[in-house]
Amino acid sequence: MTYPNAPARPPRATLVVTAHAGDFVWRAGGAIALAAARGEKVTIACLTFGERGESAKAWREGRNLEEIKGIRREEAEKAAAVLGAGIRFFDAGDHPLVATAELTDRLVALYRETQPDVVLTHPAEDPYNGDHPAAHRMALQARNLAQAIGYPGPGGIIGAPPVFCFEPHQPEMSGFRPEVLLDITEVWETKRRAMECLGAQQHLWDYYTDLAVRRGVQLKRNAGTDLGLAHRTTAEAYMRPFPQITKELG
Amino acid sequence: MTYPNAPARPPRATLVVTAHAGDFVWRAGGAIALAAARGEKVTIACLTFGERGESAKAWREGRNLEEIKGIRREEAEKAAAVLGAGIRFFDAGDHPLVATAELTDRLVALYRETQPDVVLTHPAEDPYNGDHPAAHRMALQARNLAQAIGYPGPGGIIGAPPVFCFEPHQPEMSGFRPEVLLDITEVWETKRRAMECLGAQQHLWDYYTDLAVRRGVQLKRNAGTDLGLAHRTTAEAYMRPFPQITKELG
Amino acid sequence: MTYPNAPARPPRATLVVTAHAGDFVWRAGGAIALAAARGEKVTIACLTFGERGESAKAWREGRNLEEIKGIRREEAEKAAAVLGAGIRFFDAGDHPLVATAELTDRLVALYRETQPDVVLTHPAEDPYNGDHPAAHRMALQARNLAQAIGYPGPGGIIGAPPVFCFEPHQPEMSGFRPEVLLDITEVWETKRRAMECLGAQQHLWDYYTDLAVRRGVQLKRNAGTDLGLAHRTTAEAYMRPFPQITKELG
Amino acid sequence: MTYPNAPARPPRATLVVTAHAGDFVWRAGGAIALAAARGEKVTIACLTFGERGESAKAWREGRNLEEIKGIRREEAEKAAAVLGAGIRFFDAGDHPLVATAELTDRLVALYRETQPDVVLTHPAEDPYNGDHPAAHRMALQARNLAQAIGYPGPGGIIGAPPVFCFEPHQPEMSGFRPEVLLDITEVWETKRRAMECLGAQQHLWDYYTDLAVRRGVQLKRNAGTDLGLAHRTTAEAYMRPFPQITKELG
Amino acid sequence: MTYPNAPARPPRATLVVTAHAGDFVWRAGGAIALAAARGEKVTIACLTFGERGESAKAWREGRNLEEIKGIRREEAEKAAAVLGAGIRFFDAGDHPLVATAELTDRLVALYRETQPDVVLTHPAEDPYNGDHPAAHRMALQARNLAQAIGYPGPGGIIGAPPVFCFEPHQPEMSGFRPEVLLDITEVWETKRRAMECLGAQQHLWDYYTDLAVRRGVQLKRNAGTDLGLAHRTTAEAYMRPFPQITKELG
Amino acid sequence: MTYPNAPARPPRATLVVTAHAGDFVWRAGGAIALAAARGEKVTIACLTFGERGESAKAWREGRNLEEIKGIRREEAEKAAAVLGAGIRFFDAGDHPLVATAELTDRLVALYRETQPDVVLTHPAEDPYNGDHPAAHRMALQARNLAQAIGYPGPGGIIGAPPVFCFEPHQPEMSGFRPEVLLDITEVWETKRRAMECLGAQQHLWDYYTDLAVRRGVQLKRNAGTDLGLAHRTTAEAYMRPFPQITKELG
Repeated sequence: MTYPNAPARPPRATLVVTAHAGDFVWRAGGAIALAAARGEKVTIACLTFGERGESAKAWREGRNLEEIKGIRREEAEKAAAVLGAGIRFFDAGDHPLVATAELTDRLVALYRETQPDVVLTHPAEDPYNGDHPAAHRMALQARNLAQAIGYPGPGGIIGAPPVFCFEPHQPEMSGFRPEVLLDITEVWETKRRAMECLGAQQHLWDYYTDLAVRRGVQLKRNAGTDLGLAHRTTAEAYMRPFPQITKELG
Repeated sequence: MTYPNAPARPPRATLVVTAHAGDFVWRAGGAIALAAARGEKVTIACLTFGERGESAKAWREGRNLEEIKGIRREEAEKAAAVLGAGIRFFDAGDHPLVATAELTDRLVALYRETQPDVVLTHPAEDPYNGDHPAAHRMALQARNLAQAIGYPGPGGIIGAPPVFCFEPHQPEMSGFRPEVLLDITEVWETKRRAMECLGAQQHLWDYYTDLAVRRGVQLKRNAGTDLGLAHRTTAEAYMRPFPQITKELG
Repeated sequence: MTYPNAPARPPRATLVVTAHAGDFVWRAGGAIALAAARGEKVTIACLTFGERGESAKAWREGRNLEEIKGIRREEAEKAAAVLGAGIRFFDAGDHPLVATAELTDRLVALYRETQPDVVLTHPAEDPYNGDHPAAHRMALQARNLAQAIGYPGPGGIIGAPPVFCFEPHQPEMSGFRPEVLLDITEVWETKRRAMECLGAQQHLWDYYTDLAVRRGVQLKRNAGTDLGLAHRTTAEAYMRPFPQITKELG
Repeated sequence: MTYPNAPARPPRATLVVTAHAGDFVWRAGGAIALAAARGEKVTIACLTFGERGESAKAWREGRNLEEIKGIRREEAEKAAAVLGAGIRFFDAGDHPLVATAELTDRLVALYRETQPDVVLTHPAEDPYNGDHPAAHRMALQARNLAQAIGYPGPGGIIGAPPVFCFEPHQPEMSGFRPEVLLDITEVWETKRRAMECLGAQQHLWDYYTDLAVRRGVQLKRNAGTDLGLAHRTTAEAYMRPFPQITKELG
Repeated sequence: MTYPNAPARPPRATLVVTAHAGDFVWRAGGAIALAAARGEKVTIACLTFGERGESAKAWREGRNLEEIKGIRREEAEKAAAVLGAGIRFFDAGDHPLVATAELTDRLVALYRETQPDVVLTHPAEDPYNGDHPAAHRMALQARNLAQAIGYPGPGGIIGAPPVFCFEPHQPEMSGFRPEVLLDITEVWETKRRAMECLGAQQHLWDYYTDLAVRRGVQLKRNAGTDLGLAHRTTAEAYMRPFPQITKELG
Repeated sequence: MTYPNAPARPPRATLVVTAHAGDFVWRAGGAIALAAARGEKVTIACLTFGERGESAKAWREGRNLEEIKGIRREEAEKAAAVLGAGIRFFDAGDHPLVATAELTDRLVALYRETQPDVVLTHPAEDPYNGDHPAAHRMALQARNLAQAIGYPGPGGIIGAPPVFCFEPHQPEMSGFRPEVLLDITEVWETKRRAMECLGAQQHLWDYYTDLAVRRGVQLKRNAGTDLGLAHRTTAEAYMRPFPQITKELG
């Protein structure tokens, strides 16, 4: 007897719901690369290109809206390919990203199509960027609707895949507490290469490298100090909105 | 590369730190029985017999302090044997259980002797019984001291075993939120037999049976509804004061 | 001098605002039956039939939307009659229940029509079902609007009836802390009969019976252990979003 | 069937546990006067005279420790008499008030002697004065120990009297949220006279008068605005650490 | 090197975003008068006149909607003039104030036009009046959008002005904790005169005078007791949703 | 009219209360260097040498307790000299640091001797190291006792210096939210040199350099992005347990 969301059976499908084109790389690139390296299928739902709120450099260079969308799309596609994931663009308009019934319904359809065993998305709070909480709310509501046999639309209902919320840019201001530390050392180089696909945000490459090292130090401290772990452990932090289910504590 | 506290390598030693003689049965009997059934070593540290605060029936029957301690010790030994665990009595005096440097030092020695891979104890809050938070604080402080090479005493230092806090009697009044639901269906009959060793608290047998079923319903809901789980799933709930460490989300 | 919402003058009208057809029975059936037994008028506002999200069994049996609404309406009418309450159906569509100005306005009209002395509704949080928080928000906003002389519509403005939020399905995951324990022992058989009107959710009959007993144990513990209370006390738990007003502590 | 702590049977004994000689007047004088006016017995446990931390004026006038204790005792006795309550001084030393097993044991004895139906004490937090939380912790622990048949000492065990925590000097900094608003209009003049017994803290007379009016405004707002309440309603605010028990919502 | 939002360079423009016509006077009149007295430009954005929810007296006198708006507008204009500030009316309709993209966009334009160095608005919570949180959310979202070069519209992008949330009517029920106490003693008479422009809410004049004195007492206590401050210090309390930035602790 | 703790009058004395010999460097080295650079007097109270819990490397090299204390003392003295501060060692014994009346009394004497305008210490929570919260509690209690004219001992009473709690090693696990970001760019090289005095903890040099850069990025984001700040801004984060007092918002 196994659960679809317990470690005993490896997850085979992961759905990542993000607000802007770059989010999946900085915040969950390690988790995506690990899943892909295990042969699993990962689908990224990019609700917007981050064309207004996360593309200041391009605007300063005089690009127009469509050009910027094109640049961000291309960068995101490259990064997804490096990580080994598929990507879908919803082009819902950012800054602000507005939650609508129609957009949520498109997410329900994607849940039912991909039948995820694991869901990754933004956490509930971010005082610096309202698009992130909006994506969180839609990701959770769509998951809930996709479970209901009475909700119309194509595809079969889904189970109850565990949800992991990735780290926001300013964790302490967003009520973020690392509840899970994921060791991404084995795929670190892949994540770094994916980050380097995002030319529009080059200043963040080292920033998120430092963060990965810092989370790695935290992982080592929480794992005990003399464990023979690689000197340069890297990690990503996640929160769980729902309880972990397991047959063994550890 | 594995961690001692990650599911990849099965934990081999569990330390349970409890305030009173019956606590380990009601709150963690399933986890103990599961670990024992996997061939692991489980050690229960009973800080007091619960002779003053949890033995009302015996006092009403006119027993004196030593008699009551004897009754509680005998019951606890039987229950531990049913679950497959060893038990140590600290006889520190309950109601109130007072945290002292000497008692904490005895716990440090037990940590170093047993080298636990997993620690179970009470959660931080309980407005109805101050002994439980006192046991929690000592369990966490002793774990921390046992890690320090500079702290004197016999035995080698320990790593950083994950800690799981079990469910208090009134969870909503104690800030308890189930972060881990442990499926104990396979050992349910063992836990029930251990509960039935505690003749002094017979009114709790059905109470904790109902709780196990209710947590089982919660487990099924969080695992998805159509999973072919046994109809009568039972579970125990736990909180984690430290982050989970893993190489795979799920 | 008395307050309309203080125990000195018995409440004479209760308004219950719920998301789905079954909620008032599981969560507040005891409070409703007690009020009705005292000769008070109770009105239940059912915002939806729960036709999509809470009727999985009927969908699996191949019923269509209108049939399911009909079944749920009939069951809810029977249960309300058993409890001694009137019921109004808003048919606003569930899963998701969407808060709109029009729906809130209809609730304002009901507040002004019924002039409630007590209001019961869902609590603010429920990570498993967004319809419940939506109903909570509309219930509180409509109460506020109904108080304003400047808000248009028929009926006189209302006072400030105290609000009681009933227990969600997973209280610890929803930030629910029992602030009021209501003794429903005297009407327990009535509540059980009302539950048995809800054939579509038979698996919940025993679940909510166990919960009532468990809340009863908690009531007894908080009331003192030797009080001559009936052996099988049953209770319902509530939260208060606003302060209690009283002329006597106790 | 009634509860000792439910409004149906009037409380007959109240125990007030406070850190310093003046606390019971400013914070709970209205509740005490109301209880006394109903013919109930109220006992005030003054753990210290506030001789070091709350008597700056007397120190500046050159009084010594014993003189100051004498002044504070006399003032407190007068105020208690005005309110209609008895008072016991523990002289445990303030600033800091240190929680000890011996002091807690003396409180247990007082609980068992007075058999309170209602307990009033400080709330759990106060960043400006550590004596208040210390008194809170001892009041709650002693209540718990006094319930245990196994805890030695004279007097019978007590039930589970409800606890009300009164308002600290800086409520917003102390996590204080008014959960109960007690209408003290009928005894306001008595409370004001008791305050005027405290000559050492004359600057607080108007301060706590303003607070009472402000809490009265809040009471009126929460009770509805057109209720014929006296224009100048006064009130005291309280928190409940344990759930209210009742047979009727309202 | 200086920051636009650090004390080293005096702020030169302040934007106040409020829900109803009177809010800026009761809650931030002192801060506005201080800024104006320093020669700075202050702009008040009044989203509604409070015509439905905060004008009970006028409705009882039989005025109609347009008349009431006119009265509130006139009063607010007078009060703003007394304080030395400019005022803009959005007439968005209160009770409920509904957050819309169009209204937020008008706020973005005002941010870009006024280029504020400091922003004042309502705090995030208020269980008694949903219009206040709605104004808060729009004020913060508009600030965020106005920063984005990609967000269309006239005017240059803004920096990151610090935000201060003023005190709600029932602070303890709204999670309000004074993080900043602003000494308004020097402009107290001005604030009082501005309050007296609001004839429709005369009962609040003394209420907010008492509050200012009480916050002044708190200021003195937090500043040390022997500082030669004016006997009757008055103050306003604020929260900061974002961190303070400084080059010197103090 | 000025406050001793408002920016208008520069603070002239700072007291830093820390648990272990290295804490003041990693967590507050920038604030100390800034104050010293302004010509102010800074006194560091080192409650312990961190000889047991923070000197693993020395223990592994076979040093004994006295040797280790000597090493840590020498390192700390060098680092304090680099920063421009005086240092006092209390040698109270770490791991665990136990709060006692005698140790608190010695801190009271230091408060009264140094008459601090600003106090820096650990925050209230740290699940990884109980010595830090113990130091926090003693620092705040001693500050409170030092204010009381009735508390005996040499030296005059102190005012109410503002308190700043510096960042713990694992901020998100310790409830730490940056409420103040202090720009330390001007003294960064000094802080780095002070860190390099701590040879026993060389692995932390780069770790705390990265943290300073990360807090600097956060400072820039909160200050607005186009402000001409130095490219490599560094910062330290602090919390305030008491409200800020000011005459100007900004």
